[in-house]
Amino acid sequence: MKVDPAVKYRPFEPVKLTDRTWPDATISRPPIWCAVDLRDGNQALIEPMGTDRKLKMFNLLVEMGFKEIEVGFPAASQTDFDFLRLLIDEGRIPADVTIQVLTQAREELIARTFEAIQGAPRAIVHLYNSTSELQRRVVFRTDREGIIALAVKGAKIVKRYADEARARGQEIVHQYSPESFTGTELDFAVDICKAVMDVWEPTPEKRVILNLPATVEMSSPNVHADQVEWFCRALPNRDCAIISVHPHNDRGCAVAAAELAVMAGAQRVEGTLFGNGERTGNVDLITLGMNLFTQGVDPGIDFSDMKRIVAMAEECNRIPVHVRHPWAGELVFTAFSGSHQDAINKGLKAMRETNQPLWEVPYLPIDPADIGRSYEAVIRVNSQSGKGGVAHILERDFDLKIPRGMQVEFAKVVQQLADKTGEEQTSDLIWRAFEQTYLYEGSGRFSFIDHRTVPVGEGVEANRAITARVMDGNVAKTVEGHGSGPIDALVDALRTNLDVDVTVQDYTEHALGSGSDAQAAAYVCVANHDGRTVWGAGLDRNIVAASLKAVLGAVNRLEQGEG
Amino acid sequence: MKVDPAVKYRPFEPVKLTDRTWPDATISRPPIWCAVDLRDGNQALIEPMGTDRKLKMFNLLVEMGFKEIEVGFPAASQTDFDFLRLLIDEGRIPADVTIQVLTQAREELIARTFEAIQGAPRAIVHLYNSTSELQRRVVFRTDREGIIALAVKGAKIVKRYADEARARGQEIVHQYSPESFTGTELDFAVDICKAVMDVWEPTPEKRVILNLPATVEMSSPNVHADQVEWFCRALPNRDCAIISVHPHNDRGCAVAAAELAVMAGAQRVEGTLFGNGERTGNVDLITLGMNLFTQGVDPGIDFSDMKRIVAMAEECNRIPVHVRHPWAGELVFTAFSGSHQDAINKGLKAMRETNQPLWEVPYLPIDPADIGRSYEAVIRVNSQSGKGGVAHILERDFDLKIPRGMQVEFAKVVQQLADKTGEEQTSDLIWRAFEQTYLYEGSGRFSFIDHRTVPVGEGVEANRAITARVMDGNVAKTVEGHGSGPIDALVDALRTNLDVDVTVQDYTEHALGSGSDAQAAAYVCVANHDGRTVWGAGLDRNIVAASLKAVLGAVNRLEQGEG
Repeated sequence: MKVDPAVKYRPFEPVKLTDRTWPDATISRPPIWCAVDLRDGNQALIEPMGTDRKLKMFNLLVEMGFKEIEVGFPAASQTDFDFLRLLIDEGRIPADVTIQVLTQAREELIARTFEAIQGAPRAIVHLYNSTSELQRRVVFRTDREGIIALAVKGAKIVKRYADEARARGQEIVHQYSPESFTGTELDFAVDICKAVMDVWEPTPEKRVILNLPATVEMSSPNVHADQVEWFCRALPNRDCAIISVHPHNDRGCAVAAAELAVMAGAQRVEGTLFGNGERTGNVDLITLGMNLFTQGVDPGIDFSDMKRIVAMAEECNRIPVHVRHPWAGELVFTAFSGSHQDAINKGLKAMRETNQPLWEVPYLPIDPADIGRSYEAVIRVNSQSGKGGVAHILERDFDLKIPRGMQVEFAKVVQQLADKTGEEQTSDLIWRAFEQTYLYEGSGRFSFIDHRTVPVGEGVEANRAITARVMDGNVAKTVEGHGSGPIDALVDALRTNLDVDVTVQDYTEHALGSGSDAQAAAYVCVANHDGRTVWGAGLDRNIVAASLKAVLGAVNRLEQGEG
Repeated sequence: MKVDPAVKYRPFEPVKLTDRTWPDATISRPPIWCAVDLRDGNQALIEPMGTDRKLKMFNLLVEMGFKEIEVGFPAASQTDFDFLRLLIDEGRIPADVTIQVLTQAREELIARTFEAIQGAPRAIVHLYNSTSELQRRVVFRTDREGIIALAVKGAKIVKRYADEARARGQEIVHQYSPESFTGTELDFAVDICKAVMDVWEPTPEKRVILNLPATVEMSSPNVHADQVEWFCRALPNRDCAIISVHPHNDRGCAVAAAELAVMAGAQRVEGTLFGNGERTGNVDLITLGMNLFTQGVDPGIDFSDMKRIVAMAEECNRIPVHVRHPWAGELVFTAFSGSHQDAINKGLKAMRETNQPLWEVPYLPIDPADIGRSYEAVIRVNSQSGKGGVAHILERDFDLKIPRGMQVEFAKVVQQLADKTGEEQTSDLIWRAFEQTYLYEGSGRFSFIDHRTVPVGEGVEANRAITARVMDGNVAKTVEGHGSGPIDALVDALRTNLDVDVTVQDYTEHALGSGSDAQAAAYVCVANHDGRTVWGAGLDRNIVAASLKAVLGAVNRLEQGEG
């Protein structure tokens, strides 16, 4: 790169906090969630939501269980204002949901904000101004005192309007954000929050929300956690405040930043579905909630129909959810690797056997069914997959339980196809390959017509005789042989009648489906005198015919030089 | 959700490490990067890469500066094997790049692996087996000793083949991964790595790579860092090993996990471009590298043409890079919010004024130019944007520097359009709105035809007389007036000749482009006797004509009741 980063960029200064406690903390209950999809998320859309999409998003958030929802910045957008009026005038806000509105510190904006929420039984009025050293210097061109004066002035105006609203019966919760907190000196962040608290006079019963935005994510998440712990320790009247975080994702660490911040004392997290928001987005509430879920902590949000949540978010935001998005992307429960597929199958089998509720499956951190995903998409086959995946798909989609040796053989067939085409081997393609390899015994030398078996002898000499009709090329032939069962007898018949000398190495058969007209599937491994072995398969409603077809199929393959 | 998480899932057990040192560490140099796009990334694609795409990806990784590249799993895939032969036989591996190949612990696979790399001057042979408690129990059905025996057996076979390769002049580096490290008891992870080291006998000069895969991300990144620090402390002959991490992203924290692991002692990171890989993917090397870059640490990877990196990765993986992907997504340097736009403009202006190399712009964590992005996309306008963005686009794309009062007026016009259509206000749409609002003075009562001014009087009485021809509706009229300059004189002419009584409140004019035939842009704010004020604009090659058009445009708007 052309630029010398050492001149243009400098390291983020760490927080002096060597006695930090957060690395020993664990999270045993969810923070208060606040969904800001309709504000921070919306403002960053190429095409912000109109009323229809806003209403869909609001209803989705309510259904999922969010109790605090930032609905807009009504003083800055007529659409936001109108939407708030619609929610309130049409009584669309459930009793247990609190709306939140954002405002800057100017009187006309604050007045307009309270106009927008008039009639709402309970609302959080979120006042913010930017406090970072850089913004003070280049945007506001004022010093710390000037910025505190701005915040205090805004807080006083908010208090006046809030008191009027309270007199009209509304419950107003105060929230203040020192915006660009991550670029703000920590002592100044405490000073300005303290100044605002002095105006609002919160109590442990009527707490203020102090929201600490990582407006731009500027450091690794441990430093963010240090900032939060430092702030929480230094803030006077800590019990009168709910500490909230609002991480953005510029460094790709917003989820970690939120989790470590909660360990460091934050009680509330603002974020959005799938992390929509300015630039790289806000922290993703889906991932945060699901991460808690996998630790045995109920997140208080309902993710049981994740497909619908994805579809609705995509419709409202007009931004796709990535195929690898944690917990929700199309591919995140998919295993293409053969060893992963094998381990997943074994894990699922072990769970069926032990019948314990604890979820323990390699490579599948949760049960996809918990979020409404089926197992169907878990195992998919490409050129990197092995026998496990192919066997799984044959069993899942076609009820064929092919034996291990045959899995190895058939996986090579599928892998060659995948290598050749470079494409995913779908269930249909795998079935077609299975048919062509195993089921068309007619494409080789022999094909099965029909058979008859009769018992001969008695006692230890008891035995079966077979009379089978087969096509040998274009000629129908009748062959006869003896053996301990029909397969042996057919092998004997082939050797004595047609000079085809093979031995049966392995044999499995199972019903396909149930009922009296269910088919049987037979798998037979046959070796010739060279020691070459191949598998054959047969399907038939008659279990003997199925196994005879399997033998003939395997013989055909040997005759064609396979194995 | 229907499931009680407390029964089905349980919290990850923290590491007992209260004297951890990593939270006080900072990263001052990059780890060794190993790009595993062609292996871990490739195996997770719906359509794995064929030779063409593999070669494009390999060349891209080389050009970006990666020195260790895991090229495939040649014993498991014919395509991977063939690709390795192609790289080696065609001499496509630069002298300073080391290829890496993955193998399981079976002799036939190891033999095939060494066959694949024969002739490569230097290669890392990466042996792995799964070590987690769960995999031991349900997949391998063996105990710790059984798993160690498997690893040791594999290590011995690798050593034998490696020694043969060395005898042929190849340099072979040993790498071992206790796969599913994050689910492995730490003492057992150390035991098995120690057992493998005992076979390979590394030295501080010939170090072994011990790679600790977060095959599934199972805990918050601080716990992962604790695991790494614990492991590094407990490993005997620590100086004979390079500790590598390989984080997956199931909890959305892979970037944080990698960074904290490096702070905890990891010297090497395996990952992929944009985090492609199994399920949620591997850690994203782009984000890791760029995060270092922004801290003033040269990552040793070239990101200067990010657009091309995105395009190539999308072509090879056939998976899109998300619009909000850190450092690379289409929208990550875009500001739609008015206050962000305003701050960005002020920050850019301050940087021009101070002329310091240090990058300090609010909401823009890096200079987009460093990664080949232009500023064009930074500021975009939707219904949530304010005056800053509109003004920025008029200046950037049309060279129009409209004064602040006019910005406020025009931003309302644009916001109404955005609110009405719900769409992004592109540069074209903004220009059309500007034209229709300000430039078609002919659509109102008056339009400009031509003018003549002459000086009259002398000294303090010096003055200008104007003779202007204007269309008043459909009638061409000639008006005359006096003033200190042509604008004053026209206002005088309008009042005395046509009974139009306005005053000029503000006036700005600037050249558009350069050269003698450059146009001028004039902006005039005019008030009528009610105190209503509106802005007008005029463009003309004649600077006087431009200002007269601006006056007439503003007068027309007043006459139409605007302001």
